[in-house]
Amino acid sequence: MSRRKKIYEGKAKILYEGPEPGTLVQYFKDDATAFNNKKKATLEGKGVLNNRISEFIMLNLGRVGVPTHFIRRLNMREQLVREVEIIPLEVICRNVAAGSISQRLGIPEGDALPRSIVEFCYKNDSLNDPLVAEEHITAFNWASTQEIDDIISLTLRVNDFLSGMFAAVGIRLIDFKLEFGRLYEGDMVRTVLADEISPDSCRLWDIETNEKMDKDRFRRDLGNVTEAYAEVARRLGIMKEAPRAANDEAWK
Amino acid sequence: MSRRKKIYEGKAKILYEGPEPGTLVQYFKDDATAFNNKKKATLEGKGVLNNRISEFIMLNLGRVGVPTHFIRRLNMREQLVREVEIIPLEVICRNVAAGSISQRLGIPEGDALPRSIVEFCYKNDSLNDPLVAEEHITAFNWASTQEIDDIISLTLRVNDFLSGMFAAVGIRLIDFKLEFGRLYEGDMVRTVLADEISPDSCRLWDIETNEKMDKDRFRRDLGNVTEAYAEVARRLGIMKEAPRAANDEAWK
Repeated sequence: MSRRKKIYEGKAKILYEGPEPGTLVQYFKDDATAFNNKKKATLEGKGVLNNRISEFIMLNLGRVGVPTHFIRRLNMREQLVREVEIIPLEVICRNVAAGSISQRLGIPEGDALPRSIVEFCYKNDSLNDPLVAEEHITAFNWASTQEIDDIISLTLRVNDFLSGMFAAVGIRLIDFKLEFGRLYEGDMVRTVLADEISPDSCRLWDIETNEKMDKDRFRRDLGNVTEAYAEVARRLGIMKEAPRAANDEAWK
Repeated sequence: MSRRKKIYEGKAKILYEGPEPGTLVQYFKDDATAFNNKKKATLEGKGVLNNRISEFIMLNLGRVGVPTHFIRRLNMREQLVREVEIIPLEVICRNVAAGSISQRLGIPEGDALPRSIVEFCYKNDSLNDPLVAEEHITAFNWASTQEIDDIISLTLRVNDFLSGMFAAVGIRLIDFKLEFGRLYEGDMVRTVLADEISPDSCRLWDIETNEKMDKDRFRRDLGNVTEAYAEVARRLGIMKEAPRAANDEAWK
């Protein structure tokens, strides 16, 4: 196999040139980072789990008509995706206060919010992904008003879908982060869901015990990070066996 | 316990006067009917299962901000609900062709629809719940334009939520029927989800085998009706033990 061209390397994923024009290969690393790269670790098997969990969610979202960049999983750590122009926003949807909104607005972690809240952060590591308002997004031309409308409406649909999906398996969806891209098809441009949806990008609490089953286990040194991710995969029926630290051999 | 006043008796449920003004008790019978009462049977344990499944779904829909009539489950067969004025429409949301749309439009059962389709039927047994257009609904004043808009938007939210919920447990949501009511609160009127959501009102197919796990097992004489309902409850974590015909004693 000839060496592929690396298009972009992020903290947890690498994008390679795909086999056909307009496609990319998204590779899931085991690397975990938090606090904008100040904390780092390698968590064996995390990439494999996120590849599978994100595949499951993107496939099922596609089936209900939410457009995504996902085409198909290629192997344990890679999926084929459509090449999109990433809109430079981190779109956060919150159902329950946790993380930055708790700190910024003084809302105790775990308090239900009055309604689901969609926040935008400008995707820029050197600025620490700062919170922005729609005013900034349109003024600096990061996205059009129409794109913002599409993003909000798709984000709320994803929230309903994921809330149902996780409720069915005893997990409360606290919040999650999405990224969107522009998919060019001839003269048309469509706004589609990109990146990944996984315990790296969601806050997931066990509905009975409130135990965290997401990246906060890494951020807050709670231990058993990949075990928690594997339990999410197991509950969703992706991983049939009992939870354990997944490694590449654990998967057929 | 003094005899309660019966407000309404339907084919599968009875509504009694509730303990406080503005409340009703919704009792789930074991009776099953199909083809507008032409086919009848008693399926032991069905009412218990539908009470629990509908409780689980309504509770979780309430948590994501979908307003419902549900207050709380009282016992094995009864739940406390808010008294609403039922809007005389059966609202059907379809993702995959099955049942009447297959017959009426000649679409093979199992074909995915181009997008989710919301249909309205006029709720009237003596007329066989005929399909109607928005034109009829507003002309005969069954619901206002604003109410129709609210109903469609809530129905699509419920579709996303239920699609996620069932996808998480290996079930494909083919279609479902909702009813809505007007909830009067002082000077305000709100459109809220009423009735029940259960295998009586949904088509649910196993995602691997396409086996039917809903009332079509009764309509089409496929057998094991309550066993299929119990399997739905078991997968949603409502019923912990292995599937079996649920009877009132099977529940703590």
